[in-house]
Amino acid sequence: MKRKITLKQIARELDVSISTVSKALSNSKEISEDTTQKIQAFAKLYNYKPNNIALSLKNRKTKTIGILIPEIVHHFFSTVIRGIELIANRRGYNVIVGLSNESFTKEIINMEMLATGSIDGFILSISKETLLKQDYHHFNATIDQGMPIVMFDRVVSEVECDKVIVDDFNGAVKAVKKLIDNGCKNIGLITTMDYVSVGRLRTQGYLEALQSNCVEANSNLILKIDDSLDVENHLEILENEMGQFFKMNGNIDGIFAVNELYAVTAMKVARKLGLSIPDDIQVIGFTDGVLSKHATPSLTTVSQHGQKMGEQAANLLIDRLEALDAEGDQYFTNNERKSDFIKMVIETEIIERESTK
Amino acid sequence: MKRKITLKQIARELDVSISTVSKALSNSKEISEDTTQKIQAFAKLYNYKPNNIALSLKNRKTKTIGILIPEIVHHFFSTVIRGIELIANRRGYNVIVGLSNESFTKEIINMEMLATGSIDGFILSISKETLLKQDYHHFNATIDQGMPIVMFDRVVSEVECDKVIVDDFNGAVKAVKKLIDNGCKNIGLITTMDYVSVGRLRTQGYLEALQSNCVEANSNLILKIDDSLDVENHLEILENEMGQFFKMNGNIDGIFAVNELYAVTAMKVARKLGLSIPDDIQVIGFTDGVLSKHATPSLTTVSQHGQKMGEQAANLLIDRLEALDAEGDQYFTNNERKSDFIKMVIETEIIERESTK
Repeated sequence: MKRKITLKQIARELDVSISTVSKALSNSKEISEDTTQKIQAFAKLYNYKPNNIALSLKNRKTKTIGILIPEIVHHFFSTVIRGIELIANRRGYNVIVGLSNESFTKEIINMEMLATGSIDGFILSISKETLLKQDYHHFNATIDQGMPIVMFDRVVSEVECDKVIVDDFNGAVKAVKKLIDNGCKNIGLITTMDYVSVGRLRTQGYLEALQSNCVEANSNLILKIDDSLDVENHLEILENEMGQFFKMNGNIDGIFAVNELYAVTAMKVARKLGLSIPDDIQVIGFTDGVLSKHATPSLTTVSQHGQKMGEQAANLLIDRLEALDAEGDQYFTNNERKSDFIKMVIETEIIERESTK
Repeated sequence: MKRKITLKQIARELDVSISTVSKALSNSKEISEDTTQKIQAFAKLYNYKPNNIALSLKNRKTKTIGILIPEIVHHFFSTVIRGIELIANRRGYNVIVGLSNESFTKEIINMEMLATGSIDGFILSISKETLLKQDYHHFNATIDQGMPIVMFDRVVSEVECDKVIVDDFNGAVKAVKKLIDNGCKNIGLITTMDYVSVGRLRTQGYLEALQSNCVEANSNLILKIDDSLDVENHLEILENEMGQFFKMNGNIDGIFAVNELYAVTAMKVARKLGLSIPDDIQVIGFTDGVLSKHATPSLTTVSQHGQKMGEQAANLLIDRLEALDAEGDQYFTNNERKSDFIKMVIETEIIERESTK
């Protein structure tokens, strides 16, 4: 068996970044012709096959789905995986999980590792760094080579594939409307920086709900957390930021937070400041995880139905794999890009608990 | 490329179970000679190579660690993975995660899938069903073929390999001793069935702490939960069982629970019965996850240091892989079983919060 060369090794040998190698091999315009030629020549010399994915697809079915998620210590992603597993097992597939750790380079390395022979297709959610860079060449290269991808939750329009998303925008609208209906006059938003699409969409939903109910938006009432820091280990920073936020906005009587950790932390900080929940401040979070259920008071949340997302994503991918099987070589001979992609929107639901009136 | 046959396909063709195939291929005495011959002949015919693991080890380094865990919606396992990743990244390795879903058969299938070419070695925690069956042939077969395994948390003496465990016994002793020192006279134990080793060891620690402090054990004060049911989705059953337990034992003034979900649920049930924590009942859990931190009152727990376990496991595995590299063919020529295995015990620590005085 010949020793196979990897993107990482090529990058090291030629003293360029892994993403440069990855882009050059997929003929990205971003890389100079000179560099592209050099990298492609080297890859050829060492027998690197950018298209061995398609070969492996033609020649064998691994009956394995590769899941690629940004992080593992995250209840939402866990429940999505549970949903994928449920359907995969039922339909005779195995699953294997890779982690990008929110890193662009690790996402590329993991995709390469999984794609070359181990799996039939991907179900994935994009890393924060990739979203920030807006560089999606590795997804498109994988699809071009004939390996199907289903994206969930963190998706982008720049990649054409099946997608399963939660209705973040309307989920946020529902949550904020509920606070307005419950009598809140000054509703604060605790959200992430805008480059994470879910944070952006939920922020837009917040603004939309205010506007359509003739409440003027006030930028002082919006707290954007830099979630590039590992919140679990920097709880104090988060608590301090929220403490300042509450002190600067003494009139806040409602909070919509874009995840449950922010919501539960906001409740804790508010209580420390002598505020009572839900009497002084009503709180609604997003994501229905263990924290929401077991918090005191228990948290009213917008449920994302993670397991259902996983189930739908698995069904979409397996449907497509079986369709490819049925078509056989046709798909690769024509090498035309499919364009019948499905975007499945999972409706959100408000789960009422004790943090709202 | 030849289509590779899998254990599952052999099992289906010959109408036997996957574990029968797996055992027959590793010459287990449990399988009749007749069946073993039939299976081995079939495997040979279809070119199934039980020893292609060793071949792949000799011929290439994937620089990837395979992690096999029982379930993913579990904060402890997530933190272990985080620890493994941290060290793996630092030492130039990638990780890939397989899930057994607490199933013996899935554990075998996943090990086969990962072992044949994708990874250099395993870090794993044994599934409940495997522990219940006490059937460890697949681990031993993998090790015999030259692929190193490091086990963590749920380990067994029947498999000789490097192990990282938490000091469950002494962790429990510490916790119960703390309750006794804090004045508790009737300490209840909420634990799992005995076949899960960690539950058994923590139960033994509870009994030891009582005995060495001259407190008589009372079987009425021990509640064993059947954790084969998916507790997350059967919270009511759990709450009912605990409600009965508290009602039948009105004198309970301390609870030691072997995981944080049991502990947090016990606090909730106790509060519903009008009991105050820590004034009427003091509670200590095991595992320091998000629930412990964010519960009200926050939970005093025995921390397992999951991340540290993961870091140690990764270092043990990578050390061994590098040693194998250095030895080269020697290892496979001699084919002697190594016996210099390390059992690393991670000390527990009590994290005091509001649920104890």
